[in-house]
Amino acid sequence: MNVSVIGSTGYTGNELVKIIAKHPYLEISCLTSDNYDGQKYSDIYPPLKNIVETKIISNDWDYVSDKSDIVFLCLPHAASQKAAAFFHSKGKLVVDLSADFRIKSKEIYEKTYNVTHNYPDLLTEAAYGLPEIYGNEIKQSRLIANPGCYPTSVLLAVYPLVKNKFVDEKYIIADCKSGVSGAGKKLTEKTQFCEVSDDFKPYGIFSHRHGPEINAWLNEISADTRVIFTPHLLPIIRGIESTIYCKSDKNENEIRQYLKEFYRDSFFVRIMEKGVTPRIANVSGTNFADIGVFKEEDNLIIVSCIDNLLKGASGQAVQNVNIVMDFDEETGLI
Amino acid sequence: MNVSVIGSTGYTGNELVKIIAKHPYLEISCLTSDNYDGQKYSDIYPPLKNIVETKIISNDWDYVSDKSDIVFLCLPHAASQKAAAFFHSKGKLVVDLSADFRIKSKEIYEKTYNVTHNYPDLLTEAAYGLPEIYGNEIKQSRLIANPGCYPTSVLLAVYPLVKNKFVDEKYIIADCKSGVSGAGKKLTEKTQFCEVSDDFKPYGIFSHRHGPEINAWLNEISADTRVIFTPHLLPIIRGIESTIYCKSDKNENEIRQYLKEFYRDSFFVRIMEKGVTPRIANVSGTNFADIGVFKEEDNLIIVSCIDNLLKGASGQAVQNVNIVMDFDEETGLI
Amino acid sequence: MNVSVIGSTGYTGNELVKIIAKHPYLEISCLTSDNYDGQKYSDIYPPLKNIVETKIISNDWDYVSDKSDIVFLCLPHAASQKAAAFFHSKGKLVVDLSADFRIKSKEIYEKTYNVTHNYPDLLTEAAYGLPEIYGNEIKQSRLIANPGCYPTSVLLAVYPLVKNKFVDEKYIIADCKSGVSGAGKKLTEKTQFCEVSDDFKPYGIFSHRHGPEINAWLNEISADTRVIFTPHLLPIIRGIESTIYCKSDKNENEIRQYLKEFYRDSFFVRIMEKGVTPRIANVSGTNFADIGVFKEEDNLIIVSCIDNLLKGASGQAVQNVNIVMDFDEETGLI
Amino acid sequence: MNVSVIGSTGYTGNELVKIIAKHPYLEISCLTSDNYDGQKYSDIYPPLKNIVETKIISNDWDYVSDKSDIVFLCLPHAASQKAAAFFHSKGKLVVDLSADFRIKSKEIYEKTYNVTHNYPDLLTEAAYGLPEIYGNEIKQSRLIANPGCYPTSVLLAVYPLVKNKFVDEKYIIADCKSGVSGAGKKLTEKTQFCEVSDDFKPYGIFSHRHGPEINAWLNEISADTRVIFTPHLLPIIRGIESTIYCKSDKNENEIRQYLKEFYRDSFFVRIMEKGVTPRIANVSGTNFADIGVFKEEDNLIIVSCIDNLLKGASGQAVQNVNIVMDFDEETGLI
Repeated sequence: MNVSVIGSTGYTGNELVKIIAKHPYLEISCLTSDNYDGQKYSDIYPPLKNIVETKIISNDWDYVSDKSDIVFLCLPHAASQKAAAFFHSKGKLVVDLSADFRIKSKEIYEKTYNVTHNYPDLLTEAAYGLPEIYGNEIKQSRLIANPGCYPTSVLLAVYPLVKNKFVDEKYIIADCKSGVSGAGKKLTEKTQFCEVSDDFKPYGIFSHRHGPEINAWLNEISADTRVIFTPHLLPIIRGIESTIYCKSDKNENEIRQYLKEFYRDSFFVRIMEKGVTPRIANVSGTNFADIGVFKEEDNLIIVSCIDNLLKGASGQAVQNVNIVMDFDEETGLI
Repeated sequence: MNVSVIGSTGYTGNELVKIIAKHPYLEISCLTSDNYDGQKYSDIYPPLKNIVETKIISNDWDYVSDKSDIVFLCLPHAASQKAAAFFHSKGKLVVDLSADFRIKSKEIYEKTYNVTHNYPDLLTEAAYGLPEIYGNEIKQSRLIANPGCYPTSVLLAVYPLVKNKFVDEKYIIADCKSGVSGAGKKLTEKTQFCEVSDDFKPYGIFSHRHGPEINAWLNEISADTRVIFTPHLLPIIRGIESTIYCKSDKNENEIRQYLKEFYRDSFFVRIMEKGVTPRIANVSGTNFADIGVFKEEDNLIIVSCIDNLLKGASGQAVQNVNIVMDFDEETGLI
Repeated sequence: MNVSVIGSTGYTGNELVKIIAKHPYLEISCLTSDNYDGQKYSDIYPPLKNIVETKIISNDWDYVSDKSDIVFLCLPHAASQKAAAFFHSKGKLVVDLSADFRIKSKEIYEKTYNVTHNYPDLLTEAAYGLPEIYGNEIKQSRLIANPGCYPTSVLLAVYPLVKNKFVDEKYIIADCKSGVSGAGKKLTEKTQFCEVSDDFKPYGIFSHRHGPEINAWLNEISADTRVIFTPHLLPIIRGIESTIYCKSDKNENEIRQYLKEFYRDSFFVRIMEKGVTPRIANVSGTNFADIGVFKEEDNLIIVSCIDNLLKGASGQAVQNVNIVMDFDEETGLI
Repeated sequence: MNVSVIGSTGYTGNELVKIIAKHPYLEISCLTSDNYDGQKYSDIYPPLKNIVETKIISNDWDYVSDKSDIVFLCLPHAASQKAAAFFHSKGKLVVDLSADFRIKSKEIYEKTYNVTHNYPDLLTEAAYGLPEIYGNEIKQSRLIANPGCYPTSVLLAVYPLVKNKFVDEKYIIADCKSGVSGAGKKLTEKTQFCEVSDDFKPYGIFSHRHGPEINAWLNEISADTRVIFTPHLLPIIRGIESTIYCKSDKNENEIRQYLKEFYRDSFFVRIMEKGVTPRIANVSGTNFADIGVFKEEDNLIIVSCIDNLLKGASGQAVQNVNIVMDFDEETGLI
């Protein structure tokens, strides 16, 4: 299949290019970037010298459309809407890594991102690209809204427990920590080395945009659920760890067994055995999500780790394509 | 005053030596270490070359006692008890940086540390060295139990709120993150560079020894309080950040004003203005504790940051000595 | 082919297992370790859960020999000699990642490593596993001495220039910097996080064992060559950067063109264009060696970067196997 | 004395403010910044909350001049010239931390920085602020050109050896590595966390502006000396390590003794004993320069470490003021 990446020079775009280059059934067709138009991709990303020598082109959608079966969108939110609509109208399989189609409710989206959504029909049509939970919707879909990195980490841990009423839905706290690449490649003072190294801090308390995304999907199955979500910035490049606090009257073993059963056919979700604690180092550079279960009295702690650029973004995007295309789910991802 | 440090070559011992060397009213008398007996202190800690040239001696308590007015104990728990009893019996001011006198209840101590406590009377007599809360007890005391690093970070944030019934005492979660120096200088695989760098993980879930210490002191003022405490390992050398989740019916401003009032005379506790988030970088290398308040509906989030080796250990130890000796509290600490 | 790894739980052993698991023509047969005998490999290296579930066995050479076509030795020097001799005598293809067969001269080896070499015949027979330079010897060999990480970085840069008399062989300085994994997995104080992070230092000045290895191979083509080699410890996990100072009367372009020509058929050596500076981030996690050329007056600076665990160890080991087995050189390595 | 800092919110300005706040004889008068005019200094640098509450003002030179005895200039090169001339004309003691007065030769300065120098007389008048070498000139001076960080590290190691003809002046190589703060606070992609962390690279090969500064001062005592200087970027915030390669016919002990004698009265230069290797961790956060000597045959390696923000900038600036003001050299610096 011919694959193009719109906005190919950011962190998620680059991860996509690396994965596609190794994928046996996907061919890189167009790599676009307004900043690097005309340059060789490997001149922008020297690690790929001798591996990806494609020349970067500008965002000429008609040209890209002619050349592509599948289009990955790595554009900022708001900018992504129109591109998604265009390539969707051309019958391409579209995977949007922005936030534009992650939240079904036009109102919540517009309130959260403070922009207008001009494609409410596509909002309804888009599948939420969390394969372990929405695999059937994904299979049928031609427009996939790739989830946020934090929501991927939290929902994989919490969704089954809420769905099965194993936890008190009024009382869920997700204390999440992410590497700096989660902030994207844009130049900011807060991502300068001297601002991040030897430091650690929470940010966006009660206001981070991934909170409404997490709650919107949990509310589909449990209207009253409200997760308190607090992101923190880790002095590492990649990886997310979520420590999630719940109340539950089930015992630890019941919960672990249920999660193992729920993810029985999910290669990329690994439920830890009793006493084993997930860590970012175990999932970094992989598409795995590791989940650990700890219980004392009615207090349940779920630890969930992913690589924010892979299972939290580009790896999951290719996993979604594998599902739609009926490739083995792990093709090109291990 | 003549000051000695028993076990002077670990991380907390070294921080003490650095502080004492700059303190206008304290003189280094004896620096002991069984491993480095006879060597120059600055040969073990080259940053202090030309500043501290004292020769390290073995743990000869009688000799140290003759030479000292004040003795800091930087020994492992259990080992520290006997030394504390000895120097206390000689009428020295003793500041114990181990865990041996932090928990008043012999039973809880023995259960938590799985060793016998042979000095129950001293347990009763010792003051818990958290100056902003127990300043009066410290002022009268000749044996000070210097608090654990995590408990310092959590208690400064939570104690006033529990005392004043500003929060639901049944519902307090402390998600805490610490730099690697908190694990001490002992050689372990889990503190090797390649095991810590680029990683992040929780540890000691439901089982870390600082949990009982935190709850023991809160239970003095509120019997039913139970804090759920989860420590995590940060890929940095020093600093602790605690994100603490509570339920409260007071509004954000009331809580902030109350904390400002509670710490009105506490130079080293800084309550952040609305919207300001504490971070480890702001307290690293200082004796300050920075506390931020965030509220939405009934959800209260308190963020508390300290340097684990200073306010969480050696800085606080000297602060305690300043109080007993009637020096300005900040002497030698800014 | 059935492949076994002797000493599979160190850093280089683990990298080998990861590569073999993805290699289309190699099957993991036996993974040995005296420390973890009987445990599942993925319990020791959780990142490989669901990917490598092989059970670790003890170092039973007869058993391993029956089950293997190819044996990788990841043992300490001195210990490796005997294992190499054993598996070689059984007709297996042996790749030794230790230092035991890297230096042809029994005298220099014994002086450098301060141990006796008991297999002088094998010393003569072994091929030095630097494929871009000794490919022909490797092709014919059944015992391959995988080069040291620093020598790989330095020889790829300097060997062609010395051979072609492009530089003054009396005047070569290699200032090399390595990530911490180069020190191996053994517990040491100098590799503790708090000893390495925020620090940088040279070590083994004039005495590091990779110096004689570098000079031994250069002396094969130029008896008087003496490289001054200084290793430094970087606060990162993996990667080596070498800044190499030479005197040359050739101009920058001649030198660059000659290196491009010399490495024309070497996929894994990338000669940078004018003005492009190699960096560790460009080769980290890959088997590439990036080499940059800078010239002013008669001063030549060559910058050479590799990943010490891949091109400097396990990646190169598999590259050597690919060559002997007539697989494409890059099989399993991109 | 009343002290003002022009451009007080960059890294060197902030270090100056921290030192002055602790200095017993210096009072902060004006802190200027065009970006933060009107804000409290501690709002820009929260670590100084409760310590420095001065309100930042704009660069109103007349006002600053009325209020100050001493003025530190932390401005970009070229911009600094005019400010230095102004405050000098007002009879203030001026310490310029920019490059504008570091190079005596107008021609070399203009060629190196590609700007015009409009104050050639001041160029002649300015003292080069390296106290251990130019203490007498500094003592008499009212305009001090604070040296660059790399030149401080290299000249302290090399100047005495060149002066005393202990080394071949035609053959000196300085391979230097610096933390990221050396690049200053300006937003750049190359100082973003994800670009620096886990990486290491040389930069400015044969072209860095500190090269001409190093050579200009060595040429004052030895016209033919030419140091080859290569800077590298370390993934740490602060600290410089220089590994310097020379040829010498003196033995190691002669060289060490000579350096000890040369720096006999220099508190902040520490010559290591035989076999002791300097490291950044030993000087980080201090004003010390540690120098180690290693010799084999005619090859001499000098290792020199400083903190780029202290001995390499702000610490040395205050050391210079202490000298002019006849305070103890270490006042406020230990």
